[in-house]
Amino acid sequence: MNAYLQLEKRFEREAKIGEAIGVLGWDRNAMMPEGGAHGRAEQVATLSVICHELITDPALAELLDQAEADAQALNPWQQANLREMRRNWIHANAVPTDLVEAQSRAISECETVWMRARPEDDFATLAPYLTRQIDLIREAAVAKGEALGCSAYDALLDEFDPSMRAATIDPIFSELVEFLPAFIDEVIAFQASQPAPIKLAGPFPEAAQRALSLKLMSTLGFDFKHGRLDTSAHPFCGGTNDDVRITTNYDEADFTRSIMGTIHETGHALYSRGLPEAWRYQPVGQARGMSIHESQSLLMEMQVCRSRDFLTYAAPLMREAFAAGSVSDEWSPENIFANATRVERSLIRIDADEVTYPAHVILRYGLERKLIGGDLSVADLPDAWRAGMQELVGITPDTDRDGCMQDVHWMSGAFGYFPTYTLGAMTAAQLYAAARAQDPNIAAGIRQGDFAPLRAWLGTNIHAKASSKSTVELVQEATGKALDVEVFKAHLRERYLPGQ
Amino acid sequence: MNAYLQLEKRFEREAKIGEAIGVLGWDRNAMMPEGGAHGRAEQVATLSVICHELITDPALAELLDQAEADAQALNPWQQANLREMRRNWIHANAVPTDLVEAQSRAISECETVWMRARPEDDFATLAPYLTRQIDLIREAAVAKGEALGCSAYDALLDEFDPSMRAATIDPIFSELVEFLPAFIDEVIAFQASQPAPIKLAGPFPEAAQRALSLKLMSTLGFDFKHGRLDTSAHPFCGGTNDDVRITTNYDEADFTRSIMGTIHETGHALYSRGLPEAWRYQPVGQARGMSIHESQSLLMEMQVCRSRDFLTYAAPLMREAFAAGSVSDEWSPENIFANATRVERSLIRIDADEVTYPAHVILRYGLERKLIGGDLSVADLPDAWRAGMQELVGITPDTDRDGCMQDVHWMSGAFGYFPTYTLGAMTAAQLYAAARAQDPNIAAGIRQGDFAPLRAWLGTNIHAKASSKSTVELVQEATGKALDVEVFKAHLRERYLPGQ
Repeated sequence: MNAYLQLEKRFEREAKIGEAIGVLGWDRNAMMPEGGAHGRAEQVATLSVICHELITDPALAELLDQAEADAQALNPWQQANLREMRRNWIHANAVPTDLVEAQSRAISECETVWMRARPEDDFATLAPYLTRQIDLIREAAVAKGEALGCSAYDALLDEFDPSMRAATIDPIFSELVEFLPAFIDEVIAFQASQPAPIKLAGPFPEAAQRALSLKLMSTLGFDFKHGRLDTSAHPFCGGTNDDVRITTNYDEADFTRSIMGTIHETGHALYSRGLPEAWRYQPVGQARGMSIHESQSLLMEMQVCRSRDFLTYAAPLMREAFAAGSVSDEWSPENIFANATRVERSLIRIDADEVTYPAHVILRYGLERKLIGGDLSVADLPDAWRAGMQELVGITPDTDRDGCMQDVHWMSGAFGYFPTYTLGAMTAAQLYAAARAQDPNIAAGIRQGDFAPLRAWLGTNIHAKASSKSTVELVQEATGKALDVEVFKAHLRERYLPGQ
Repeated sequence: MNAYLQLEKRFEREAKIGEAIGVLGWDRNAMMPEGGAHGRAEQVATLSVICHELITDPALAELLDQAEADAQALNPWQQANLREMRRNWIHANAVPTDLVEAQSRAISECETVWMRARPEDDFATLAPYLTRQIDLIREAAVAKGEALGCSAYDALLDEFDPSMRAATIDPIFSELVEFLPAFIDEVIAFQASQPAPIKLAGPFPEAAQRALSLKLMSTLGFDFKHGRLDTSAHPFCGGTNDDVRITTNYDEADFTRSIMGTIHETGHALYSRGLPEAWRYQPVGQARGMSIHESQSLLMEMQVCRSRDFLTYAAPLMREAFAAGSVSDEWSPENIFANATRVERSLIRIDADEVTYPAHVILRYGLERKLIGGDLSVADLPDAWRAGMQELVGITPDTDRDGCMQDVHWMSGAFGYFPTYTLGAMTAAQLYAAARAQDPNIAAGIRQGDFAPLRAWLGTNIHAKASSKSTVELVQEATGKALDVEVFKAHLRERYLPGQ
C-alpha cells in the first residue's frame, strides 16, 4: 500500500474515534446526569490521547513526507486531502506536549475562576489567570506560526478557519468600521420614526414551540432519519454527518429566540449532512471551517428566515401554533418581521441584532490581536473594552461583567474564533445574493416554504466541496468574487433602511 | 513502575474505552435515529479493535508473566485483579484473529437470516447458518477450553459467568428437573381451585406509568444524579457505574410489565452503582458475571417486588397512579399479588412466570450442551425442542417460530448464557432469605417502602466485592453455604402453595 493510502487508513481511524468523541460530547450536554461528569471527562480524555498518539506517531510524519514527494500521482481531492493531513499534523506536532498540558490546565483554571468572578464583576481576581492563559497561547501560537509560515495570530485563526489570515480580514473589517457606527445611528433613527412593532405576548407553551420547531426543521430539509432535536443549556449542533443532533432551549415568554435558534442550528446541520459521504473519514471531507459553518447557519437564520419572504410563509404557522383563531395584527408577517429586525445598542454580543453584531466582533478582533501580540496588557483590557464599545457600538458598559468578562471564548483559550462570526455573516449575505441571482426558483420557493432549490444550490456550491477548497476559494467559486463588504452593506441597507 | 502497575495502566485505558463503547451502545438503543446505524457500527468497531490491540499486545503477555511471578507481593485485591486480567487475556488471545472475524461474519449472517425466517416459521432456511455458527463457536470454545483447562462448553460458560462450570450446574439443574414438572402441576391445580384474580383494566396512560416508575426507582434507591430512565424496544441497563441508564417500554394495556421491568433493571443498576469506585477501571472492579447480575435484578423484581410485603406498600401507589379515588378490590395488594404470581404453561420464555421459567432455561441448557458437544445436529433441534418442552413445561409448540427459533441468543453466538438466568433466580432467593435472616429491618423496611437496610446488605455482601471473589464464593460468604436448590424450592412452595 502506498504512503498516501496508508495515511488514509490512519486518518480514517482517527476520524472514527473523533466521531465517538462527538457523540459523547452531545450526550454530555443533552443527556448526561451531573454525576457522570467525571467519568465522561476520563472517557473523552482517553480517546483524545489516542487520537493525539496517532497523529504524533513518527511513522505518520514519514508517510506524509513520502506521500508529498509522490503527490503528482494523486487526483485533486487526494491532493487536497494530503494538504489537510499536513495541516492537522502541523497543528498537533508544532507544540511540545508539556506546553499542551500546561495550556490545558491553564484553561481549566481560568474557566473555573471566570465562572465565579464574572457574576461578582471581579476582574482583578481573573486577571492573573487570563494573563497566564494568554502567555501560554502566545507561546504555542508562535511555534505553530513558525511551522505554518505565518504570524502567531494567523496560526490561531488557522485553527478555526484554515488558511484565513489577518491580512485578508483587516481591509474587510476596516471598511465595516467606516460604515457601521453611522449606519447604526441611521437605522435606530429610522426605526424610531416608524410605528413601533406590537410585542408578541406569551406565554408560548414549550410543547407548541417544540412542535413548530420540528415543523420548520422539516421545511428547511432536516432529515429526522438522520438526526434529532433535543434540549440543552446552550444550543449547539453535534453528532455525526449521518446522525446530526441539534439542541435548543425554550423561553415561554419569547418563542422567536428558540425558533430562530433552531433554524440557525438547522443551517449547521444541513452543512454537516451535505458533506460528501465518500470522504467522511478524511480531513478533506470535513467542514471547511468556522466562517463557512457560520455562513450556513446565518444564511438560514438571518438571510432567509428573518426575511419578509420567509415570514410571509411562516407567520400563519406561528399564529396557528400560539394563537389559533386569532386575527390580531400582532401575528401579521410585517409585525413579526419588524420584531425580528429590531435594532438597538446593547452590551451583550449574544443578544445583539444583525446590525450591531459585527461591531461587537470587530471590537474583540482588535483586542485579541493586541493581547496576543503583546501590545495590550490584561490589566488594560477593561479600559480598552469600554473605549472600543463606545467607538463601535456607541454604548459603554458600567461593569466588566457586561464588558470584557462576558464571553467564555478567551477564558477557554479560543483566540482567533470571534472574526469567524462576522466573516460568516458576510459570507451568508454574499452566498444568498448569488444563489438568488443564479436561480430565481430559490426566492420563489422560500415564499412558499420550499427550500429544495436553495438546498440544491448550497449542496453543490458549498456542502459537497467540504475542505477541498479554501474558504476564500469557496466564496470566489460560488459567487464569482472574493468576500465583498459592499454585498453585506447592500443587504443591511435594503433590510434596515428600505427605500433610502 | 513494576509489571503489575504497568498492567493496571493498560487495563485502565481499555476500561475507559469500554465505557465509551457502553455509552455509544446505550445511545444506539435509546436515542439514535435509524440513519446513524452504519456510522455507529464503524465507531464501535474501531474502539473495539483498539481494545483488542491493547489486550493482544505481546508486551502485555510479558507483563502478565512477570506480575504473576511476583504475585506474592500483591495484596488480595491486586491478586484477584491479576487473575481477572489473565482471564481476560486468555479469552482474547486463545482464538486466532481470523476465527474471530469468521465468527463475527457468521453471527451477523445468522441474525439477519433469523430475523426474516422466524416470522415465516422457516427453520430450513435458518439451519445452515445456525450450523455454520455453531461449528465456529465450537472451534473457538475448544481453543479457549484448552487455554483455560476446561471443557469447550465450560469455556463458553466462563465468558458469561467466570469460573462457573457445568459440573456445578448439573446437579443443581437435575434436582430442579426432578422437582419442577410435578410442582407446576400442583401450582396450576391450586390456583384453579382458588377464585381467579380480577384483571386490572386499562388503559394505563404512558405518562402515569413513567411517573410511577420514577417514583418506585427512587424508592428502591436509584440515584437520578447518576442515572436516567429512557425508552427502548428491549429494556436494558447500560451506561457506566456513575451514570447508569436503564430503559423500559410502555404497554398501555398492562402497566405491570413496564413497572416490573423497570424494577428488574433498577436491580441491575444498583449493582453497577455499588461497584467499588477505587477499582472502577480494573477487571476486578467489574460485576462478577451474569448470574450474580441477574440475581440482583431478580432479587428486586421477583423476591421483593412481587411479594405481599412490597405490594402492601406499592398497591396504594398504583391505585393512585391509575385509578385515583377508586375503592375497587382490583387495586388491593392481594389482587395485585395474585395477578403478579399467576402461573401457566406457555411457549415463550420471556413471557414465562417465575415457576415455569427455570424449565424453559433447563431445556435450552441441555440442548446447547449437546449442540456444542456435537451430540445433537441442528437438523434434529426442532424435534428435540418439542420433546423437551413437553417433558419440562408440559406443552408442545406447533411451530418452530414459537419453539427453537424464539430466542436471539444462539443466533448471536451466545451459548452458555441461558443457565445464568436460573442460577440468578436461585441466587436471588438464597441471598434474600439470608439477608432477611441476618437483618430483621430488611423485611420491615420493604413493607414501608424503605429499601435502605436491604441496599446496605447487598452493598456489603455483593456489590462492594465486585469480582474479587468467584460466583460460588460470593454466595458461600453471603449466605453461609453453596447454592442450595432447597432454598429456591422453599421460596416457590411458600409463595405458590401457601400453607401446604
